[in-house]
Amino acid sequence: MTAPHPRIGIIGTGAIGGFYGLMLARAGYDVHFLLRSEYEAVRQNGLHVNSAVQGSLHLDEVQAYRRAADMPKCDWLLVGAKSTSNPELAPLIVEAAGQDAKVVVLQNGLGIEDDLRALLPSNIHLLGGLCFICAHRSALGVVEHQALGGVNLGYHSGSAATPEQQQALVEEGVSMFRAAGVDSNAAANLAQARWQKLVWNMPYNGLSVLLDAGTAPLMANPDSRALVRSIMLEACGAASACGYPLPEALVDRMMTATDHMPNYLPSMYHDHAHGRPMELEAIYAAPLAAAAQVGFGMPKTEALLQALRFISMRADR
Amino acid sequence: MTAPHPRIGIIGTGAIGGFYGLMLARAGYDVHFLLRSEYEAVRQNGLHVNSAVQGSLHLDEVQAYRRAADMPKCDWLLVGAKSTSNPELAPLIVEAAGQDAKVVVLQNGLGIEDDLRALLPSNIHLLGGLCFICAHRSALGVVEHQALGGVNLGYHSGSAATPEQQQALVEEGVSMFRAAGVDSNAAANLAQARWQKLVWNMPYNGLSVLLDAGTAPLMANPDSRALVRSIMLEACGAASACGYPLPEALVDRMMTATDHMPNYLPSMYHDHAHGRPMELEAIYAAPLAAAAQVGFGMPKTEALLQALRFISMRADR
Repeated sequence: MTAPHPRIGIIGTGAIGGFYGLMLARAGYDVHFLLRSEYEAVRQNGLHVNSAVQGSLHLDEVQAYRRAADMPKCDWLLVGAKSTSNPELAPLIVEAAGQDAKVVVLQNGLGIEDDLRALLPSNIHLLGGLCFICAHRSALGVVEHQALGGVNLGYHSGSAATPEQQQALVEEGVSMFRAAGVDSNAAANLAQARWQKLVWNMPYNGLSVLLDAGTAPLMANPDSRALVRSIMLEACGAASACGYPLPEALVDRMMTATDHMPNYLPSMYHDHAHGRPMELEAIYAAPLAAAAQVGFGMPKTEALLQALRFISMRADR
Repeated sequence: MTAPHPRIGIIGTGAIGGFYGLMLARAGYDVHFLLRSEYEAVRQNGLHVNSAVQGSLHLDEVQAYRRAADMPKCDWLLVGAKSTSNPELAPLIVEAAGQDAKVVVLQNGLGIEDDLRALLPSNIHLLGGLCFICAHRSALGVVEHQALGGVNLGYHSGSAATPEQQQALVEEGVSMFRAAGVDSNAAANLAQARWQKLVWNMPYNGLSVLLDAGTAPLMANPDSRALVRSIMLEACGAASACGYPLPEALVDRMMTATDHMPNYLPSMYHDHAHGRPMELEAIYAAPLAAAAQVGFGMPKTEALLQALRFISMRADR
């Protein structure tokens, strides 16, 4: 590890920030949590992860803050909040960031680093983090961890000029997660890794909302299963058309992996069920726009987005 | 009129059979109704049509039957039941049909006459009827008529050998409806007319179920409106690919016509809401198969069918 005692800040706790923050703190890292709705509950009861993999985990003494200005300057910042709130988060990230801080965006979708980059000073290193985890928040300060848990990291932009410097920072993050018992790897190409994750996210997130169903019933019914597969193939094709070739065999690997997962309700399902905005821009609109720009059609994915936007607008009323 | 006093049988009352049967009976035609679930209610209270166009209409003395064997032999039979029950209806149609009877299928979708034809003796004339009406049944024997009301007729098959003989039978039906105050015209080509009607039915029927919405909200939201338009264009393209060219201008005409309709919940919405099977085969699967056979893709329509089949299977549990 190049930085043995980094100070870590978690921006936006929820399921993702809560899980990884707790894992890092339990491993002895100095972790600080910026909280909003969860502040009181976490101060009083700590953080809890009910893990089907690791059992019941808890962190009693949580270094929790309501305001970024009260946090100590952090070396690493993990952003676990929804991408829909990034414009409001950027000033808080800047406030909590130490000199040459590393900011890891643990969010789904395409283009989120580009959008956030424009709101951050150039000395801050921006990394993307791809979480492979089935988890959701069941109450304030309580995370249900159903399966998996890995994080892959890729460098996006910042003051690391050479590939070697960028790689060293990524490896530092990977080591930090591994030291906390979290499976982690360096992603050779962040954009490609983001597209690869979209191949999973694009069918399941939207269909869980549209059809009010988790992965198991979606995979058990031959028609929804075929629809999942079509959308995965559209995402694969779009990635390749955009210059990030993904093998079509990836689709069958992901289908098989999902067959072996417990029935899982993706984050968009929980967002919609709780009246929070859905990440339609990052998970659907941005990749559709990228594909359209290179003339690649994603008709079934587009139909899904159109239906989800209708649902989203009605939910807003 | 070539047959001044035809005897008319209505097979399956519901909204369509109830409306047209009542109109014909009020015009003095000898109309006989084969009823199942509605029998008791109609015997006791008659048939009622609450029409936003023609006011409150009722038929007190209804010639109603529980069994086709009890009906007098009819010259015309209007089939208003759902296409999903055609295999069970065929023997009843045969039983109620007089010599050289004309059977008019007042149903939506593609291929329904072909399927029914195989179950009828060759002397029976089979016609397709395309209803342009906003109506639904609100209670047993009670029909709400919101707008429109026309029926276009086309000859499908039977013992009329020449185009002139077929045309004469179609004109006879058209005259009968017109004498009852119903707008009616001969369809030059039944298959083309069926595709044209599908251009409207394919978006609105399925999306009303998927998004729990009538035509007005679907048209008011820019995303669902665009989705409606895409599906209409796919249907138009499929019709043309299948040899029944429809102008793309039809799509805008139908969009505008729907904008001027009252908020309408299509029949599939009511079928699903009341736990009845949806007409997925006739309205979606048959046209999709016809398009696939000539290599024409309808991806958004296919995605809609896949989602509807998931919903349908879950509703069956």
